[in-house]
Amino acid sequence: MFEGSQLHFSGERFSVTYRLAGDERTAKERADDICIEQTVEFPADLVPQGSIREQVFGRIESFSCVDEAHYQAEISFAVEISGFELPQLLNVLFGNISIKPGIRVESIRLSQTLMAAFKGPRYGRRGLRQYAGIEHRPLLCTALKPMGLSARQLAELAYQFALGGVDLIKDDHGLANQSFCPFEERVARCADAVLRANQETGRHCIYFPNITSPADRLVKNARYARSVGAGGLVITAGLTGLDAMRSLADEDAIGLPIMSHPAFIGCFVTSEEQGISHFALYGQLMRLAGADASIYPNYGGRFSFSKPACCSIVEGTCVDMGHILPIFPAPGGGMSLERVPEMNACYGKEVIYLIGGDLHRQGPDLVRNTRRLVERVEEETKRTEGR
Amino acid sequence: MFEGSQLHFSGERFSVTYRLAGDERTAKERADDICIEQTVEFPADLVPQGSIREQVFGRIESFSCVDEAHYQAEISFAVEISGFELPQLLNVLFGNISIKPGIRVESIRLSQTLMAAFKGPRYGRRGLRQYAGIEHRPLLCTALKPMGLSARQLAELAYQFALGGVDLIKDDHGLANQSFCPFEERVARCADAVLRANQETGRHCIYFPNITSPADRLVKNARYARSVGAGGLVITAGLTGLDAMRSLADEDAIGLPIMSHPAFIGCFVTSEEQGISHFALYGQLMRLAGADASIYPNYGGRFSFSKPACCSIVEGTCVDMGHILPIFPAPGGGMSLERVPEMNACYGKEVIYLIGGDLHRQGPDLVRNTRRLVERVEEETKRTEGR
Repeated sequence: MFEGSQLHFSGERFSVTYRLAGDERTAKERADDICIEQTVEFPADLVPQGSIREQVFGRIESFSCVDEAHYQAEISFAVEISGFELPQLLNVLFGNISIKPGIRVESIRLSQTLMAAFKGPRYGRRGLRQYAGIEHRPLLCTALKPMGLSARQLAELAYQFALGGVDLIKDDHGLANQSFCPFEERVARCADAVLRANQETGRHCIYFPNITSPADRLVKNARYARSVGAGGLVITAGLTGLDAMRSLADEDAIGLPIMSHPAFIGCFVTSEEQGISHFALYGQLMRLAGADASIYPNYGGRFSFSKPACCSIVEGTCVDMGHILPIFPAPGGGMSLERVPEMNACYGKEVIYLIGGDLHRQGPDLVRNTRRLVERVEEETKRTEGR
Repeated sequence: MFEGSQLHFSGERFSVTYRLAGDERTAKERADDICIEQTVEFPADLVPQGSIREQVFGRIESFSCVDEAHYQAEISFAVEISGFELPQLLNVLFGNISIKPGIRVESIRLSQTLMAAFKGPRYGRRGLRQYAGIEHRPLLCTALKPMGLSARQLAELAYQFALGGVDLIKDDHGLANQSFCPFEERVARCADAVLRANQETGRHCIYFPNITSPADRLVKNARYARSVGAGGLVITAGLTGLDAMRSLADEDAIGLPIMSHPAFIGCFVTSEEQGISHFALYGQLMRLAGADASIYPNYGGRFSFSKPACCSIVEGTCVDMGHILPIFPAPGGGMSLERVPEMNACYGKEVIYLIGGDLHRQGPDLVRNTRRLVERVEEETKRTEGR
C-alpha cells in the first residue's frame, strides 16, 4: 500500500504546546499518542519506514515537567497537513484528542507560510480605534438587552446609550431572529437610532448587531446589517464554527469589524485538565479567525475566570503572530463604575470594556448613566497617565 | 424601558435537563442562574413583574438529588426564544453557561412546534439501510487512511475494500484538501473506484468523502462530491458548526446521507461535571442537526468512552423525537474481528461498525480481510437470531 509513497514536503512545521495530565510516563504516552492520533490515525507499527512516518507523524520537539502531575510537550506538524485551511488546522490542533482526557492545548505557534494563509482580523486594535475615533482611552461598549424587548424598545435603548457617548453598542448574543424582535427590524431600527444619535452628538458610536444565525443565512445577515448602516458584527463563533467568522472577516463586500462572543465553547476552558487554554482559544484562535475584539467574561464578575486567565487572554490577543493584527480583549460581565480603577490597573488602555447591567442599575436615565461611565473612564485614564 | 412590553407567547415550552455539581444550595443557585443567564442575561432584580419575567425567564420544572454532590434540574424555556433556529436553540441550551463550571446538559426535550422547525436526518436508519441494500445485519464501514497516501493510493484501498464487500467507505476525517491529496482528485478517484468495484460485485458499497472544509466551500464540496458519484458525506460538525451540517442535510440538491464525525468537541463530554452528555451531544443533537449516522469512539478501544456512555449515545440516536428519524450509532476506534461477538451483544443489529486499522492488521490482502469481516458479522448475526 505504501509503495511509491513519496511526499515532497517543504520541511516547514508549525507547533502546538500541550499540557498533559499524569505522571511522566502517562504524559509521555499522551504526547506520543497525539503525534499519531492527530495525523495518520493509524496503527503506528503498520506504517513502514518512509516519508509518511518521517513527515506526516507529529514530532515531539520538547517535553518537560510542569509539576508532579502535569507535563508539557511541544509537538510539531508539517504545515502541509493543515491544508492551509482553518478547519483542518483546528482538527490537527485538537480534533480526535479532544475526545481523550488529560490533554489541553496551551498555545500554538504558526510558521511563516501557514500564517500567510490567513488574513486575520481586518481592523485589529489600531483599525478599530481609528474607525471609532477614540485614540486616548479604553473603548466602551454596552449591550442591548434584555431579551423580550421589541425592536423599537431596543432601538430606544441604543439611542440613549449613543447619546450618552458610549463608543460601541452590541446586541446581546441571545437576540437572534425571534418573532417578538425580528432580526431585520431590530438591526434596521437600532442602526438608525445610533445614526440619529451620532448626528446629534457629532460622535461616531458604532452598532454591532448579532448576526449569528443558520449557516445558510449568515452572509445574507451580514450584508443586510451593513446595508442598513450597522458598523460592526457580533458572532458567536462557537455556534457558527470559527471558520464562518473567518470567512465573513475576509469578505471585502462586508468589510465590517467583528466582535466574537465566547458562548457555547466555554467548557473548552473551564477545566485545567483538558480543552484549550484561555490564551489559545479566546486569544490566538479568535484572532486567527478574524475577530477584531474577543469578548470574554471578566474576572470578579458573575463568571469564574481568574485574573491570570483574563491576563492570558489579553496576551493571546497581542502575542506576536506575524502579520495577524493584535485585537482588543473585551472583558464583560459584572463590570461596574466602581471597578473602573481596578480594571484600568489590570488592562491599561488597550481594551474594550463591556458594561451592560450596571448602566441600568444606576437609575432610569441611561443617557446620564452612560455619560458618567465615559467620564469616569476618561478621568481614570488621565489620572493614570499623569502619574 | 419595560413599558408597553407585552409578549404574546404561545405558552409552549421546551425543556433541558441539567446535571448540577455541588451541594443542594449551590446546585439550586446554578439552576436559578441558568434561568437568567440563558435568556435575559440581565440582573433579575431590575426586571419588573410582567411578561418578560413570566415568559422569557427560564423556569425550573423539577429539581432533584442525584447523589450528595450532584443535583438535576429540568428547566423549561418558551419555544419563541429559540427563534426556531438551531444556533439559537443551542445557545439557549448551553450558551453562556458553557463558561460556568459544574453544569452539564443531560438531555433535551423539544416540544411539538419546535420539533416541526427541523427536518432532521434525511435517511435515518431505515433510509440508509434501504439505500445500502442491507436489511439483515449491522452495516460495516471502513476508513481510507493513513494521511500521506496519494489520491490514487486511497482509491486503490477503496477499490479493495469495496471488492471485499464492505457496505460503506469513509474518508478519514483528517483528509481535507492537502496538496499531497487534493479534495477533488481524491473524491473523484475514490468514488470511481467504488463504482468499478460495485460493477464487479453487484453490491452497492457507498463512498462517504470528508467534505469538512472552510465555510465558503462546504456546499460547493458537497455538490462536487455528489456530481462525481459519492454516495454520502462525512462532516466534522464540531468544526463546521452543527448548523452547517443541518443546512446540507436539508438541501434537496445535495440529498446524500451524512455521517457526523465527533472530533474537536470531544471535551464537551469528557468530564461528568460540565459540558453536554454523550446522550445529548452525539445522540440527540447530531440527529437533530441532520446526521444519519453519528460516529463516536467505541468503548474498549483507544479512546476512553465507557460502555454505559456508548449505550447512552445509542439511546440518544433512537429516543422518541417525533418525526425526527432514528439514526445509526457508528462506534469506531479499536474495533476488531475478535470483538464482533461482544459488540453484537452490546449493539444488536441497528449499528454501523467502523473498522479501520484492524482490517490492515490482518495482512496485506485487504479484499480477503474485508470479506472475512463481513462473513464474521453475518455469522454472528445469524447465530444470535437463531437463538
